[in-house]
Amino acid sequence: MPKKPIYTSPQEAESAFYEALERGDLDAMMAVWSEDEEIVCILPGSARLAGYAMVREGWRQIFGSGNRLKVQLLALSTVHAPFFAVHSLVEQIAVVGEKHLAAPVAATNVYVRGAQGWRMIMHHASPVPPSSIGDAPHVLH
Amino acid sequence: MPKKPIYTSPQEAESAFYEALERGDLDAMMAVWSEDEEIVCILPGSARLAGYAMVREGWRQIFGSGNRLKVQLLALSTVHAPFFAVHSLVEQIAVVGEKHLAAPVAATNVYVRGAQGWRMIMHHASPVPPSSIGDAPHVLH
Repeated sequence: MPKKPIYTSPQEAESAFYEALERGDLDAMMAVWSEDEEIVCILPGSARLAGYAMVREGWRQIFGSGNRLKVQLLALSTVHAPFFAVHSLVEQIAVVGEKHLAAPVAATNVYVRGAQGWRMIMHHASPVPPSSIGDAPHVLH
Repeated sequence: MPKKPIYTSPQEAESAFYEALERGDLDAMMAVWSEDEEIVCILPGSARLAGYAMVREGWRQIFGSGNRLKVQLLALSTVHAPFFAVHSLVEQIAVVGEKHLAAPVAATNVYVRGAQGWRMIMHHASPVPPSSIGDAPHVLH
């Protein structure tokens, strides 16, 4: 397996996360996650996944469905400190080839900075009413 | 309004959060939240609330319903650093006087340490399947 990339900012790790999600690339997805901390991934309607092996298995199953996803992100707020960052976003996810957008999903992404650069330790995503998109948020992606 | 308490650990802030939730005490609830950061509160089935005023209004409406809640917490994992903490829990919430437990809710609580001690900056809660409770987690509360 190739050496994992080093992300020099939370934003870089976040971009890699959503690119891996759109490409359905399991290795790229798992490169974003910390191997040193107790990671947790909570996706809409799914069980809570904790630990590297369980999170990997969850993404393997999602990517195995063969659906290609297109994600539009609205960045809503961020809290940054030298060694951690919390990003709060709204994701609008569409399955490529289907016309309708899924309901918006609020995502909480937490990153920590370790010896290997910034890594994700938490992705918590859950559906929110469309009113949560608010007025003219900044479209990131 | 009385001076706000200073929480000397994330656990202390978290206990105050769930005690305020059970008591339906709006001032105690809002004392837990940071006034210095962009706070976000996401509750099951509700809109994403951002900023102190909006979060306060959300809790005011919840507490205004008059339902008294009883929360059982399962602590699942925590990541602590000198100035921030991420707690991942499962909440089992019952309305006092009703027999059934609501579906379990996965909660991500993020705390930061500032001049006024530890405060909550993020509460993201969403329903998860009962299988997420796992085997024999530590009951906290």
